[in-house]
Amino acid sequence: MVGIIMGSDSDLPVMQEAIDILESFNIQIEVDIVSAHRTPEKLVDYSKNAHKRGIQVIIAGAGGAAHLPGMVASMSPLPVIGVPVKSRNSIDGWDSILSILQMPGGVPVATVALDGAKNAGILAAQIIGASDELILNKIIAYKEELKLKVEQASARVRK
Amino acid sequence: MVGIIMGSDSDLPVMQEAIDILESFNIQIEVDIVSAHRTPEKLVDYSKNAHKRGIQVIIAGAGGAAHLPGMVASMSPLPVIGVPVKSRNSIDGWDSILSILQMPGGVPVATVALDGAKNAGILAAQIIGASDELILNKIIAYKEELKLKVEQASARVRK
Amino acid sequence: MVGIIMGSDSDLPVMQEAIDILESFNIQIEVDIVSAHRTPEKLVDYSKNAHKRGIQVIIAGAGGAAHLPGMVASMSPLPVIGVPVKSRNSIDGWDSILSILQMPGGVPVATVALDGAKNAGILAAQIIGASDELILNKIIAYKEELKLKVEQASARVRK
Amino acid sequence: MVGIIMGSDSDLPVMQEAIDILESFNIQIEVDIVSAHRTPEKLVDYSKNAHKRGIQVIIAGAGGAAHLPGMVASMSPLPVIGVPVKSRNSIDGWDSILSILQMPGGVPVATVALDGAKNAGILAAQIIGASDELILNKIIAYKEELKLKVEQASARVRK
Amino acid sequence: MVGIIMGSDSDLPVMQEAIDILESFNIQIEVDIVSAHRTPEKLVDYSKNAHKRGIQVIIAGAGGAAHLPGMVASMSPLPVIGVPVKSRNSIDGWDSILSILQMPGGVPVATVALDGAKNAGILAAQIIGASDELILNKIIAYKEELKLKVEQASARVRK
Amino acid sequence: MVGIIMGSDSDLPVMQEAIDILESFNIQIEVDIVSAHRTPEKLVDYSKNAHKRGIQVIIAGAGGAAHLPGMVASMSPLPVIGVPVKSRNSIDGWDSILSILQMPGGVPVATVALDGAKNAGILAAQIIGASDELILNKIIAYKEELKLKVEQASARVRK
Amino acid sequence: MVGIIMGSDSDLPVMQEAIDILESFNIQIEVDIVSAHRTPEKLVDYSKNAHKRGIQVIIAGAGGAAHLPGMVASMSPLPVIGVPVKSRNSIDGWDSILSILQMPGGVPVATVALDGAKNAGILAAQIIGASDELILNKIIAYKEELKLKVEQASARVRK
Amino acid sequence: MVGIIMGSDSDLPVMQEAIDILESFNIQIEVDIVSAHRTPEKLVDYSKNAHKRGIQVIIAGAGGAAHLPGMVASMSPLPVIGVPVKSRNSIDGWDSILSILQMPGGVPVATVALDGAKNAGILAAQIIGASDELILNKIIAYKEELKLKVEQASARVRK
Repeated sequence: MVGIIMGSDSDLPVMQEAIDILESFNIQIEVDIVSAHRTPEKLVDYSKNAHKRGIQVIIAGAGGAAHLPGMVASMSPLPVIGVPVKSRNSIDGWDSILSILQMPGGVPVATVALDGAKNAGILAAQIIGASDELILNKIIAYKEELKLKVEQASARVRK
Repeated sequence: MVGIIMGSDSDLPVMQEAIDILESFNIQIEVDIVSAHRTPEKLVDYSKNAHKRGIQVIIAGAGGAAHLPGMVASMSPLPVIGVPVKSRNSIDGWDSILSILQMPGGVPVATVALDGAKNAGILAAQIIGASDELILNKIIAYKEELKLKVEQASARVRK
Repeated sequence: MVGIIMGSDSDLPVMQEAIDILESFNIQIEVDIVSAHRTPEKLVDYSKNAHKRGIQVIIAGAGGAAHLPGMVASMSPLPVIGVPVKSRNSIDGWDSILSILQMPGGVPVATVALDGAKNAGILAAQIIGASDELILNKIIAYKEELKLKVEQASARVRK
Repeated sequence: MVGIIMGSDSDLPVMQEAIDILESFNIQIEVDIVSAHRTPEKLVDYSKNAHKRGIQVIIAGAGGAAHLPGMVASMSPLPVIGVPVKSRNSIDGWDSILSILQMPGGVPVATVALDGAKNAGILAAQIIGASDELILNKIIAYKEELKLKVEQASARVRK
Repeated sequence: MVGIIMGSDSDLPVMQEAIDILESFNIQIEVDIVSAHRTPEKLVDYSKNAHKRGIQVIIAGAGGAAHLPGMVASMSPLPVIGVPVKSRNSIDGWDSILSILQMPGGVPVATVALDGAKNAGILAAQIIGASDELILNKIIAYKEELKLKVEQASARVRK
Repeated sequence: MVGIIMGSDSDLPVMQEAIDILESFNIQIEVDIVSAHRTPEKLVDYSKNAHKRGIQVIIAGAGGAAHLPGMVASMSPLPVIGVPVKSRNSIDGWDSILSILQMPGGVPVATVALDGAKNAGILAAQIIGASDELILNKIIAYKEELKLKVEQASARVRK
Repeated sequence: MVGIIMGSDSDLPVMQEAIDILESFNIQIEVDIVSAHRTPEKLVDYSKNAHKRGIQVIIAGAGGAAHLPGMVASMSPLPVIGVPVKSRNSIDGWDSILSILQMPGGVPVATVALDGAKNAGILAAQIIGASDELILNKIIAYKEELKLKVEQASARVRK
Repeated sequence: MVGIIMGSDSDLPVMQEAIDILESFNIQIEVDIVSAHRTPEKLVDYSKNAHKRGIQVIIAGAGGAAHLPGMVASMSPLPVIGVPVKSRNSIDGWDSILSILQMPGGVPVATVALDGAKNAGILAAQIIGASDELILNKIIAYKEELKLKVEQASARVRK
């Protein structure tokens, strides 16, 4: 199971892509709003207990001074994927990226591209696929599809 | 009383300037290491209780993905001053600055310049001075001293 | 009392959020336009006398080469909160942020996020609250409200 | 098993931290030099076959226009962790970070901090730990050690 | 003959300018979609064989973590011109530019301005013109036309 | 006469180049320390009166949140040349540059390159030369010297 | 007389502000298009002869890799004011600013803010005013007007 | 024949790598100092005539506001390779890169990495190789050597 959390419901349009891709892989998900700055007790509770109820990977999206992914990573033993969201007052996304990426030694966050929730979902699937051959094969099939779409575009352009 | 915390003892050489200036104003201080990412329980405890034992202002210094000031601010009703520290693997300090400065609406951090611990100390004194005339007068006297030093330099240069 | 000034009336839509939040805390405010570059005499007069008529904190907003907050801080013993405004010709806000944040040793400005006037208002309230229990309790209540709103959003998303 | 590759042997001093931390967790590793730009055939071969010989996670470090992690990710179904290395002619590391982080939809790379090879190793362990309770417990124990070190530093500073 | 490739058909509106300018020089072109990340086998095939079927210069456009130009350059002996495309999720184009420009020693990419496909076309013509006097003369004529247009604008403005 | 001021005597090693070049042109100079933040009264006095005692151009150097050039420009009718100084805690000079360059409409500062005090001196001479043929001819002669030095270097390299 | 040139007629909407402000000061102007890259011969001719026909100051606006101001400065003994224009494909204006500002020792360009043509006009007037008391007084009057407008805005806001 | 020019002899240590690699390919070179800003007449003469005396490609290196490559490109029909040099007062190389890369439509410069003179040399060889099979084969052999060195490093690391 993959836990998907975000700092605010304004992040949902971006984070929806993680939900969609994981559902397309038939991986079970649990979605919630957890704000590092406005619900710090929930943050602690979520981070300490997620692995106890079967969550294997956590995807956390946040914008601006985006502390959610790093704070979850500080309290959970699970791999945490961080999605920098280009929120309304963000400085072109740089604040979101650097607040998530530049974690100190000992507490990694697996950071994906700005607004890259789809890739966060695929990475979560790959992490599960690292020890689940069924999922691994779905990833292989997904990559074949990507190739097909490019080949179709290639055929259109060559004409 | 002013609480001074930092994410790691490697931040102490920078943060020492906050300690020194506050001691020169005879303002009582309490110094500790609180790591947002390595001691999250202590972070919660410190943030929720600092105001209960007489602390009026908190100065928090951290580098890289610097979550300490913002996380303290999320749980304490006190004014929190953030000092972005240019730590060893920091990207020229941009990560520290943006992680501290770009807090979401509702949870401010009073950010000072990169490695600006001295200014954090003066700002803490000014905050206390906002309702304590004795400290306010010390600030006024301090600014006079700054002026004097510039005037002495001016005299040297004009020669 | 909190003094709120800005470099130009084009900054008012951004700075209005500071006015609104402070009014919601029932804190008395005084609003004015003071341009560092176009009314330098008024800048000097305002900065030197604000604390004499009962102002405890100054909030100053400005964009571009934003000198207003730092210049007020150079002449007033009060804590000065700087709001970097992303004005029309600003380079994505970087000029406003760096001109306000990177003050030299001795003259701090408490900088908040780009266009973060709401947080400037809350920080001003926290500064007053540092020695006024009534305001401190309002801050505590305000943070509870923030939490409630996130919990409602969480309930909506979990459905 | 974790595969650790890098674009050049000049990246080894940085990447050694990934090797060391994984060895401390008793996780089996395989280290090699694979240059996206100078040994493209080896790149293809490595990427297509790593998962077939039992590798579960790939850590790839590279500097400048750092294409290695993304190109491996394009051909392997495994989770790929990218380490941006601040190499000799890098522009403060920005080139390494952006070339690794900003992957297009469909092909994620789990990016860690600049020169963050240690965190890449921990993240690899967490990925294995997502479905291996023994490793998960080692991660939990490791985090306890981090906490202890901060507490010792805290005790020294408080004196 | 000039080969023009791009990572996605969404790059075509930008890359069309390279096609148009080369057609205006009567230089033969071949256009295709080759995605470094989604069709890596085609990438290898294209890069290794382009020079064998008469292509003299390759123009490759890509956005974000733009690996296409550099990867083609790693496998082809031909001069490769890279066009950084400001794609939808690009961070103001910086990611595209740095991923293409900052190639390691041994594997150059001739990088042009952001979205500078027209210049990529002209540069390709100049490369062919370096040993083809007919094309060289077309370049000289083209520059005369540029001059004429400026002179006409100058005449309009001076009035 | 040219007035040369700087925010701190630590700026003198950079600003010395302006002094030297103006002395080599036999243009009279007046050098002083004027700190916008530490001697604001002197700043006002200097700015309002410089043109009354025969100063024709003001060169002002400062680092970090560099308000000196802009504040002088706000109060003096003279052309003000700003020299961004890369001071100790400057963020690679960006703060100095943007604080000086990005002045609002109505109050220009003629900004030169980072640490470009020599060019500030030459520009001051050119401004005087705009209505003083003697100085204009010195500028023409100076440019001839620059050319000669390059020609000597060219001769050495061609060998 | 002030010469106003620009690299392309697409720069005219920005540069019009320099024309307007100088006309409001009754200073004679001469406007033209001179492209460093498309009319290099005209560039040489303009730069070498402007001072011979009575031009005292040159204002040059350009965008992207903006070479016009610096190239004019290399060949003219007059003060050259550079206006970085945020042109269509500019990277948020950074390319225009840095290409104009960062001139080598010996060849200054007086750079104003991004799209700051109005300030370029005022600066040109100030340069002429440095030795023309009539113009100097117009500048003083202009600054009084700026002050008045702010005072009117201040009166509106205080109500 | 390849023409190699640079703006100052201080650029020679960087540009030497272009000389060395071209000599290793037995391609004839001609090296000179041509300063866009200090020897503009030589710039015009060089640019207009290089192709007439058999030069096929021009490599131009410069730092700061690096106008040399673009100005040569404006007057020569030949392909011009620009090497951004990280000179003493450069802002981390950004000024050099953007002044060379961001050329307007119609006048391309083939930009290589910061201080990437070696790659400029290889690119020049590739341009000649586009219509000279002997050189093309040398490029193919050179790439094989690169591969061999990586394989040797790989063997050392795997041990």
